[in-house]
Amino acid sequence: MTKYELEKRFLHGGDYNPDQWQDYPDILAKDLALMKLAKVNTVSLGIFAWSALEPEEGRFEFAWLDKIFDEIHAMGGNVILATPSGARPAWLSQKYPEVLRTNDRFEKMHHGGRHNHCFSSPIYREKVAIINQKLAERYGHHPALLMWHISNEYSGDCHCAYCQENFRHWLQVKYGTLAALNAAWWGPFWSHTITDWSQIDAPSAIGESMVHGQNLDWKRFVTDQTIDFFEAETKPLKAVTPDVPVTTNFMADTVDLLPFYSLDYGKFAKHVDLISWDCYPAWHNDAMSTADLASKVGFINDQYRSLKQQPFLIMESTPSGVNWHDYNKTKRPGMHTLSSLQFLAHGSDSNLYFQWRKSRGSSEKFHGAVVDHDNSADNRVFQEVAHVGELLEKVQAVKGSDKVARVGMIYDWDNNWALDDAQGFQTQDKKYGLSLQNHYRYFWNKDIAVDVVTPDHDFSKYDLLIAPMLYLMTEETMAKLGAYVKAGGQLVSTYITGCVDENDLTYLGGWPEKLQEIFGISVTETDTLYPTDRNGLSYAGASYEAVDYCSLFKTTSAETLAVYETDFYAGTPAVTVNAYGAGKAYYIGARTGYDFLAAFYGQMVHDLTLDHPFVETGNDAVSVQSREKGDQTFYFVMNFSETAQTITVAAESTDLLTGEKVGKTIALAPYGVKVLVP
Amino acid sequence: MTKYELEKRFLHGGDYNPDQWQDYPDILAKDLALMKLAKVNTVSLGIFAWSALEPEEGRFEFAWLDKIFDEIHAMGGNVILATPSGARPAWLSQKYPEVLRTNDRFEKMHHGGRHNHCFSSPIYREKVAIINQKLAERYGHHPALLMWHISNEYSGDCHCAYCQENFRHWLQVKYGTLAALNAAWWGPFWSHTITDWSQIDAPSAIGESMVHGQNLDWKRFVTDQTIDFFEAETKPLKAVTPDVPVTTNFMADTVDLLPFYSLDYGKFAKHVDLISWDCYPAWHNDAMSTADLASKVGFINDQYRSLKQQPFLIMESTPSGVNWHDYNKTKRPGMHTLSSLQFLAHGSDSNLYFQWRKSRGSSEKFHGAVVDHDNSADNRVFQEVAHVGELLEKVQAVKGSDKVARVGMIYDWDNNWALDDAQGFQTQDKKYGLSLQNHYRYFWNKDIAVDVVTPDHDFSKYDLLIAPMLYLMTEETMAKLGAYVKAGGQLVSTYITGCVDENDLTYLGGWPEKLQEIFGISVTETDTLYPTDRNGLSYAGASYEAVDYCSLFKTTSAETLAVYETDFYAGTPAVTVNAYGAGKAYYIGARTGYDFLAAFYGQMVHDLTLDHPFVETGNDAVSVQSREKGDQTFYFVMNFSETAQTITVAAESTDLLTGEKVGKTIALAPYGVKVLVP
Amino acid sequence: MTKYELEKRFLHGGDYNPDQWQDYPDILAKDLALMKLAKVNTVSLGIFAWSALEPEEGRFEFAWLDKIFDEIHAMGGNVILATPSGARPAWLSQKYPEVLRTNDRFEKMHHGGRHNHCFSSPIYREKVAIINQKLAERYGHHPALLMWHISNEYSGDCHCAYCQENFRHWLQVKYGTLAALNAAWWGPFWSHTITDWSQIDAPSAIGESMVHGQNLDWKRFVTDQTIDFFEAETKPLKAVTPDVPVTTNFMADTVDLLPFYSLDYGKFAKHVDLISWDCYPAWHNDAMSTADLASKVGFINDQYRSLKQQPFLIMESTPSGVNWHDYNKTKRPGMHTLSSLQFLAHGSDSNLYFQWRKSRGSSEKFHGAVVDHDNSADNRVFQEVAHVGELLEKVQAVKGSDKVARVGMIYDWDNNWALDDAQGFQTQDKKYGLSLQNHYRYFWNKDIAVDVVTPDHDFSKYDLLIAPMLYLMTEETMAKLGAYVKAGGQLVSTYITGCVDENDLTYLGGWPEKLQEIFGISVTETDTLYPTDRNGLSYAGASYEAVDYCSLFKTTSAETLAVYETDFYAGTPAVTVNAYGAGKAYYIGARTGYDFLAAFYGQMVHDLTLDHPFVETGNDAVSVQSREKGDQTFYFVMNFSETAQTITVAAESTDLLTGEKVGKTIALAPYGVKVLVP
Repeated sequence: MTKYELEKRFLHGGDYNPDQWQDYPDILAKDLALMKLAKVNTVSLGIFAWSALEPEEGRFEFAWLDKIFDEIHAMGGNVILATPSGARPAWLSQKYPEVLRTNDRFEKMHHGGRHNHCFSSPIYREKVAIINQKLAERYGHHPALLMWHISNEYSGDCHCAYCQENFRHWLQVKYGTLAALNAAWWGPFWSHTITDWSQIDAPSAIGESMVHGQNLDWKRFVTDQTIDFFEAETKPLKAVTPDVPVTTNFMADTVDLLPFYSLDYGKFAKHVDLISWDCYPAWHNDAMSTADLASKVGFINDQYRSLKQQPFLIMESTPSGVNWHDYNKTKRPGMHTLSSLQFLAHGSDSNLYFQWRKSRGSSEKFHGAVVDHDNSADNRVFQEVAHVGELLEKVQAVKGSDKVARVGMIYDWDNNWALDDAQGFQTQDKKYGLSLQNHYRYFWNKDIAVDVVTPDHDFSKYDLLIAPMLYLMTEETMAKLGAYVKAGGQLVSTYITGCVDENDLTYLGGWPEKLQEIFGISVTETDTLYPTDRNGLSYAGASYEAVDYCSLFKTTSAETLAVYETDFYAGTPAVTVNAYGAGKAYYIGARTGYDFLAAFYGQMVHDLTLDHPFVETGNDAVSVQSREKGDQTFYFVMNFSETAQTITVAAESTDLLTGEKVGKTIALAPYGVKVLVP
Repeated sequence: MTKYELEKRFLHGGDYNPDQWQDYPDILAKDLALMKLAKVNTVSLGIFAWSALEPEEGRFEFAWLDKIFDEIHAMGGNVILATPSGARPAWLSQKYPEVLRTNDRFEKMHHGGRHNHCFSSPIYREKVAIINQKLAERYGHHPALLMWHISNEYSGDCHCAYCQENFRHWLQVKYGTLAALNAAWWGPFWSHTITDWSQIDAPSAIGESMVHGQNLDWKRFVTDQTIDFFEAETKPLKAVTPDVPVTTNFMADTVDLLPFYSLDYGKFAKHVDLISWDCYPAWHNDAMSTADLASKVGFINDQYRSLKQQPFLIMESTPSGVNWHDYNKTKRPGMHTLSSLQFLAHGSDSNLYFQWRKSRGSSEKFHGAVVDHDNSADNRVFQEVAHVGELLEKVQAVKGSDKVARVGMIYDWDNNWALDDAQGFQTQDKKYGLSLQNHYRYFWNKDIAVDVVTPDHDFSKYDLLIAPMLYLMTEETMAKLGAYVKAGGQLVSTYITGCVDENDLTYLGGWPEKLQEIFGISVTETDTLYPTDRNGLSYAGASYEAVDYCSLFKTTSAETLAVYETDFYAGTPAVTVNAYGAGKAYYIGARTGYDFLAAFYGQMVHDLTLDHPFVETGNDAVSVQSREKGDQTFYFVMNFSETAQTITVAAESTDLLTGEKVGKTIALAPYGVKVLVP
Repeated sequence: MTKYELEKRFLHGGDYNPDQWQDYPDILAKDLALMKLAKVNTVSLGIFAWSALEPEEGRFEFAWLDKIFDEIHAMGGNVILATPSGARPAWLSQKYPEVLRTNDRFEKMHHGGRHNHCFSSPIYREKVAIINQKLAERYGHHPALLMWHISNEYSGDCHCAYCQENFRHWLQVKYGTLAALNAAWWGPFWSHTITDWSQIDAPSAIGESMVHGQNLDWKRFVTDQTIDFFEAETKPLKAVTPDVPVTTNFMADTVDLLPFYSLDYGKFAKHVDLISWDCYPAWHNDAMSTADLASKVGFINDQYRSLKQQPFLIMESTPSGVNWHDYNKTKRPGMHTLSSLQFLAHGSDSNLYFQWRKSRGSSEKFHGAVVDHDNSADNRVFQEVAHVGELLEKVQAVKGSDKVARVGMIYDWDNNWALDDAQGFQTQDKKYGLSLQNHYRYFWNKDIAVDVVTPDHDFSKYDLLIAPMLYLMTEETMAKLGAYVKAGGQLVSTYITGCVDENDLTYLGGWPEKLQEIFGISVTETDTLYPTDRNGLSYAGASYEAVDYCSLFKTTSAETLAVYETDFYAGTPAVTVNAYGAGKAYYIGARTGYDFLAAFYGQMVHDLTLDHPFVETGNDAVSVQSREKGDQTFYFVMNFSETAQTITVAAESTDLLTGEKVGKTIALAPYGVKVLVP
């Protein structure tokens, strides 16, 4: 059993940067006292500490780190130790400029910023291996070491000669021959046939940008190259500490918390021992309700949990606000508690913060932290963090549990990239991720657990599988979906599905025959609407709005559930269901509002008895999420609204947070949360 | 008689890229079968086929092209053969980087994209000459060859050393001395006096950009350089096939279908044997009505027809949608027929498509095409194309006819460039093209034919000549306009007219005396309004809104037709007319809505009896356009609305599309069209 | 006494460019005649005339300048002679490319534009010194010479190797050691510790951009480097003409007329003999009322006057419109007179124009000028200029007077830069300048004179000192403010005050103790609101809206004047006052609309009897500004509205503009203005 496996506590703590405060001994002393007050049990050290660890080439200074390691250990805490590759010392950039990136206009970057090193540079890899080796040797067997935190928020790409050469090599391995590459990239289009490997460059705003197969391969290469760098970082660590788990902190995009765009985390997940990620919901924003945002938080946590089908870590979050949104509003009282427990409810085994203490200078000095510039425990944020620390201890029984879902959704990075690149439909934004969130919303409202998986996952565990907008779909995926339905699965698909193969080449001869067979329809056209255009769906006696996209199709064996209401295709099928083997395949031809999806999935949930077994009368503003351990189920009941709410459940229970008995009618204060055990 | 002159059919077909499908023999076989079904009689070959024709330097492969040439011939079809210069093979960019452009930040482009070669590069010219020569020798006397399609959609510019040197040479030829150049460029301003030719660069965002004479000369040079490249491309073809006409496909800008900005097509038109162009109206968009857009389509087709005063070709259009608009909506049933016949109605002798078949990969795979990925004749788009093919045969009698207009409008590229560059007025967008479209709209609504010509055309053929916003006006043009009015012409001019000469230097001493003489007024100020500012015109007992610009002026001999209603110039003249010789010159001082123009031109049309002789009761949503051949007139009657419409005409007639007799009252279905012969 | 000190007239005239018209002798002759008509007494010569003065390296041509110097002198006029460094001759850029700037992407600029030379280039400094020396020798003792106009509108920065080296040197002088620099820049953050001076570059979009201390130091360096260049330019002039004053024309930013962003004019002011600046209000725009804009004009003129606590010059203004706004509307009749006298009312001793005559070509040919292309005195603009010329003579008695203010406001460039850079709060725009204008507005409405000063000024002269959003506040400033209040001053501060020190490092240990002591409160949080969020202040029985920012704080000794109305801090203090020594310190915790500020300052003005002694019944659209000379006070009474207005005053008086007696009730026509002496 590793230290991590032996840890009974939920992790509480976060990024700690004593390297910034070496000239402030009183601050360093205060940190430890405050950590105890805040019930901190885990700190992440060494992120961006390279210049402190190796102030000049080959001269290492570990004394400061030794000290804090020992102190954390002395207070019974864990250390998550980072490799420092996320930012280089200035001496390294100066002596070896090759470690700096070249951007997509072929400009060589100058030193600065962070997360901007070349993933190919042999010297950078060598220097990272050396420092990682030193860290492993010095701290690998320290009793406080819990886990390795590899670099920080990997992202971006580089267009230097090394990276170009690696890309070409990657392509040679993939395609073998130029004939195969030209076939996949549809070479003759615009005379883009490649006749020598050396003619290939990465896509560039001042070079090639319209060869979609190349664009897609570049994004895949960037993921592979990043993973390769990660593996190179990990190698010296694993050599010394084969049993210490490694992770790297993942991210999400925009205030909608969409899956991170630039790296295929589906692939990356296979290379980390456990997933950790940095979650920053913009609570109390003025573009959506608290429940709207909470559902998005639920979606992405369920997704990142599903990638490895196991609990994950929140590696970074903020106890108050961030500093990089357009408007950096702080959390209202109670929201930090609610939000922290929501992470647990969706499968997190931690609530770690960026950052323990606000820095004094530079760009992140106003990013939320446990300890503010006042260096005090006597303020709202610190006290709510300490309160969360106490609650995490109270719900310790939940540790070791996991979520179980009967509903699966498919999200695919390849698909998102290809769809985003596609010239056609609505060119600017196809809204793939947002569409998935819209489908997910029904299940969140109804407290039904959902997994969000990639196409290579096992679908057989799901009673219902939802695969919207799978524009890029391999024949293998088609076959898997067919087998899934045939065996009794319920599959839901939508407009813009099954258009291209893994090379972003369209299927020829009409909508793929396999899909025709599964869905009992044949798609003939996709009508793209202008923003103010509207069509309607007539479904089960009611009318629903259709926007953005309307698929036109013919049914063969499918039954029509809804028809279009206007335009030249009025009266033709809009939503269908097809009995296929022991299962059913549904096709939703148009993008709709939430109202239609609620009606549609309401019927399915009823038919499949997917209703939450514990919740008798739910509430769209109250989310109930379960974690299970053996026979025991823990119910997280969370009020994501600014008013008191009530739900009724099937049984009386105990609230682990308070130890109080709770009846079948559960009243929740604004932002109220309970963790119930029946 | 050339093959083109002998062709009795309207051309139907379009861009065909068998080079993309050499690995798909079944597709190639199906193409020919489908072409027959679609009544295709003409294909454009070889656009972007350089890498297929010359896969490595000096090795040519024509077998695939021979085959398709013979097949097209065998089915009685024509080939429009393109020179392949629109995109380079990768080997060419790799071996000779000089063929790639340098942008206006002096960044050297990398290989990729298309339409981005240097027009000066000696090597590129040499390589193009060689391949063109080969094509001429091999296909110049093939019986299927109808026409040469030179390159594709010429556009852009290059800032490499060759181009800079050519620019300097062009300036030396134009100005002779630096004194003359400095006088024209107003050299001393900001110390910009040039003292050596070598000091001159092209305008650049990181160099010189504020010398307006230089900016104007650069745009003129770019046109001349592009034409020079075109001539160099054409030379080897003309040597072998002096009788085969050459054209190159022109373009329009934005969804408003404004005249293409970057090249002076007025000049370019003199170098092509016939004009062809690529027309992509965004039908059914949500920013304008169908009639609004149809009028814009009419405007630009009339303009491109007028440039050579002869029928032109639609070289590219889409049977469904495009892939490069923000929202790529497809045509509603009937719109393709209506839109195709509208092209003919304005003087097109073809309806050719981009593209025959959707490509399978890369950026244009969702661009509309006759044949979709389903490879089938059994879909809405193919069937409507086939229907258009039939209709084109039914109206074959129209071939050989042309349009005759008594109303002329002036559009001038030099003027547009100078006006666009002008610092002053509304800086961002002076709306020159949109203003012309607004004037044109009245005549379109009233079914009155209009020519849109450049200032070097003969005006004497027009009863009415409309010249809005001729900010840049040479003394030669003033003299021409004066002579035109003196001889009895009716001239309409507007605000922002006669400000600068051919060097973008202002006229001194007040509004040019010649214009004062013609219009009987003297312009003293131009009031530029903020977007929400409004003034009013009091005209013929009614009040009309004035926006954007109000000229302030004094009348000398002119009669005042309208006065301003508010602000410090309330009561002063806003619209005037001056009797000058046998004609009249009108000046409209303010930008107005369509309502005023309708009232104003309504009176003129009445006075000049410009009313359509055939239309008795017209309809703003129904456009009637005539083509004339000897004594015969063909009336295209087109309903650009989503509802049924009626007009009444002077005589009974026969509809060529159906062969049916049509009475004086003509009822049109939504998007309905008839081609009538009385 | 210098010629400038002896000048009894307000300066009237402006930028004159005979160098552009050397080929137009009739124009040059007409200029002099028109100047007399327009009552011009001063022209600025030689701006951008380098290529005319030194057409090739080392060959100087002064004849044309001699002539105009003599002619101006002959008509009794003054010459303000410019050094020509604002734009280089082409030969200079060509021979010495180092004089051109390198931008922040490290792109070397090409020749062109203006105001874009490197401030470090030794060769540029040498060439400027030579031409300046020549000008000093030739014209330094010419009787027409009034003043030196150094270069033109200094701005921008350069990233060349010289500038980088100068920046490093500047840092070495400032910090002495890298340890000190790293401490100030918070070096360890993101491993940004500097270990060799040579590792430092200027901030760059493709290098370092997130080290806030570095960003702030770069902006300070740019100011110092610009001043150093200015001093280098001035040196040869002062050597020859120690008694001729030097100035350089300052600017403002955007249509809101915010203090110029890029240069610290507070520092620069100490190096000029008198301040001159270029003021271009966008009168009659559609985003604000005339009074709104007039108040902004008042603010910035008061600020630039306050920097040296003496009258200043309007070096450029337009008699009509400009050419670089989005919409270049011209002044309505009367507005030029009103606007010109407003400049005087706030302390200007001139009304000079850019430009005397519109150029014939290039980008400024439509910029407003006294003489239009019509070359005539017979137009609206010329005539209103001539009228202003007459009025300036009529108010000549005002010359020698200055403004006296009992209210001070603090604007600090360092603070604006640090606040703008701050990641946090509302990231995009903290609205520092606009907030100051909002506070100023009350006093403008109530005709109470205000100084706008930097923190290094003497505060003791003010009864009331307003210091909003002083985010960056040194301990020295805190001490000064404390002493000011202790001695009986009234201080008003707001949200986002006292966050960081001079290095942009946050204060630790809570809100600075000195501020706690002064204000009797302790700020604990700043709540940042989304744009649609609202809170309310309950103050003196009324409710006022709070937007953008709400400070949360605890009172110690302060009295609460207003409380928040909603959200989790409802009922807590929002506005407080603290008795401190003999004075009082007010803290306004939230951003409010004008309504609250009017109520708040209304009370203070009443308590402090700051009311205007002459105005009995004021009018928000009528501004009354006083200038004092000995015992005499001149009242400028100005109606900034489109309708007639009335005010009543304490005494009868005489209007210097008309010589008429004016009673206590003063009626003003739209845009009407009077200059009253009781």
